[in-house]
Amino acid sequence: MSTLTLPETIPSVPEDCEQLRKAFEGWGTNEGLVISILGHRNAAQRKLIRQTYAETYGEDLLKALNKELTNDFERVVVLWTLDPAERDALLANEATKRWTSSNQVLVEIACTRSSHDLLLVRQAYHARYKKSLEEDVAYHTTGDFCKLLVPLVSSYRYEGDEVNMTLAKSEAKILHEKISEKAYNHEDIIRILATRSKAQINATLNHYKNEFGNDINKDLKTDPKDEFLAILRATVKCLNRPEKYFEKILRLAINKRGTDEGALTRVIATRAEVDMKFIRDEYHRRSSVPLDRAIVKDTNGDYENMLLALIGHGDA
Amino acid sequence: MSTLTLPETIPSVPEDCEQLRKAFEGWGTNEGLVISILGHRNAAQRKLIRQTYAETYGEDLLKALNKELTNDFERVVVLWTLDPAERDALLANEATKRWTSSNQVLVEIACTRSSHDLLLVRQAYHARYKKSLEEDVAYHTTGDFCKLLVPLVSSYRYEGDEVNMTLAKSEAKILHEKISEKAYNHEDIIRILATRSKAQINATLNHYKNEFGNDINKDLKTDPKDEFLAILRATVKCLNRPEKYFEKILRLAINKRGTDEGALTRVIATRAEVDMKFIRDEYHRRSSVPLDRAIVKDTNGDYENMLLALIGHGDA
Repeated sequence: MSTLTLPETIPSVPEDCEQLRKAFEGWGTNEGLVISILGHRNAAQRKLIRQTYAETYGEDLLKALNKELTNDFERVVVLWTLDPAERDALLANEATKRWTSSNQVLVEIACTRSSHDLLLVRQAYHARYKKSLEEDVAYHTTGDFCKLLVPLVSSYRYEGDEVNMTLAKSEAKILHEKISEKAYNHEDIIRILATRSKAQINATLNHYKNEFGNDINKDLKTDPKDEFLAILRATVKCLNRPEKYFEKILRLAINKRGTDEGALTRVIATRAEVDMKFIRDEYHRRSSVPLDRAIVKDTNGDYENMLLALIGHGDA
Repeated sequence: MSTLTLPETIPSVPEDCEQLRKAFEGWGTNEGLVISILGHRNAAQRKLIRQTYAETYGEDLLKALNKELTNDFERVVVLWTLDPAERDALLANEATKRWTSSNQVLVEIACTRSSHDLLLVRQAYHARYKKSLEEDVAYHTTGDFCKLLVPLVSSYRYEGDEVNMTLAKSEAKILHEKISEKAYNHEDIIRILATRSKAQINATLNHYKNEFGNDINKDLKTDPKDEFLAILRATVKCLNRPEKYFEKILRLAINKRGTDEGALTRVIATRAEVDMKFIRDEYHRRSSVPLDRAIVKDTNGDYENMLLALIGHGDA
């Protein structure tokens, strides 16, 4: 499911650190060397590299990357090099600070990570910001967005496969009733989406479709401009079909006039080691263009090369 | 802070198991022997005893206790023998099932445990009930109680000592405004109590008292019969002065016509290894009677002896 490619023989950690140090030395930075190392090491290996680099050179590798690299290339390398939980904590913190109601990053982090991984994000958030994630989300959001987002980021969903079919039926009915009444912010809709296990929600949404004819997200699209409805649809999609959710984010980021590098970078840096293969396949199927070709067309230079490395493009 | 007393030489775990097995054999149970062992072992030791007992006799010690003991004595021994996180999961599950708005057990568990311990409770809840704690709380509660309790049981508060005094002042003002308007269920009151760190809440409540003259809980007592106000006061007290909260629960349980054994058992079984010394001292100060004497007066037999053992009474 990961698109990351590792070299056949992986250099020792001290060797990697030495090469990175070399890449930073002298006039200009050797960006290609940075990509050839960091773009081809998994999370555990990158963590060791960061530790050893700090021990050897007395400097945080991330600080060095911030100093040596620039713009979109800097952003993707820094995000990628961070530990996944720290990376999510950083993305979530940014999302709370420049909150706009269309910002779906919090939904993404709350609903596409496993319960355990979301917990690690909350721990990393404590360590990094001396506050809790839910505290910042509750403080910076208001109204219906707050009512939905706080329980989503605080959730610790049961992860077993057991499904209660009676409950699925009764809750599909509740969802349908509230949506028919346009009571989109009803506490039962939020309760079901924020607390039930993903397996249970899947059963409920299947029953919804069988019984009432439409995908729930179709019924949640009565007003394409309503931003709360958009967040609800994102929640459903992140819980139920994360790879389709991410494929669409990529598609919109690339097809925009002027690529949305923020979204492109975020999706590739957070999913490369998780489900990027599915997302890449889904993108190809849905856009009739392979993802690597679309990226080559839309981006340039070191940034392009790093993205291609992370999605497993042959020559990167 | 714990009132548990351990023998000078602690028998080996297999010896303890053998003695417990003996206590269960033949006609009648040797309750004194059960107390002399389980009433004087700490959480780690009891855990080992449960493991070894199951390995040696092919039976869960808790099942044996359920079979051999009865009534209040059974309840206190079983609760005590459980791992703290499992015990809280069980208490919380009971609280969701026989929910009455006056039930403060959920507040107790959500607000007096550390963030890490509350997390262990949520994990134990998954393992035991194949559901999440917040899922059951959200499903079984309604209205304002639901609005308060779901974020409380889902919280993972920051535990550092850092305090933002500017924030403490502004949030004390918000609390005072909303309380003056009798908007007790206002989202800001719930947000502050459910997400801020205990250190931050303490600073906010100090400022509240300095600036506006009363303890917040005095201002939350306009209608002594209002059950939502009672739950809010319990939340404040559990966050801010847990030993005073528990002292009062004990005092009310003992002073009732017909002791409230449920509350007495719960407080002693959950606090003996935590802060029972403070609670016991506070009880003596507040009631002018030592806690052990009050328990001797109100309870009997094996139940009495087990409670006395757990609160560190000399001869038990």
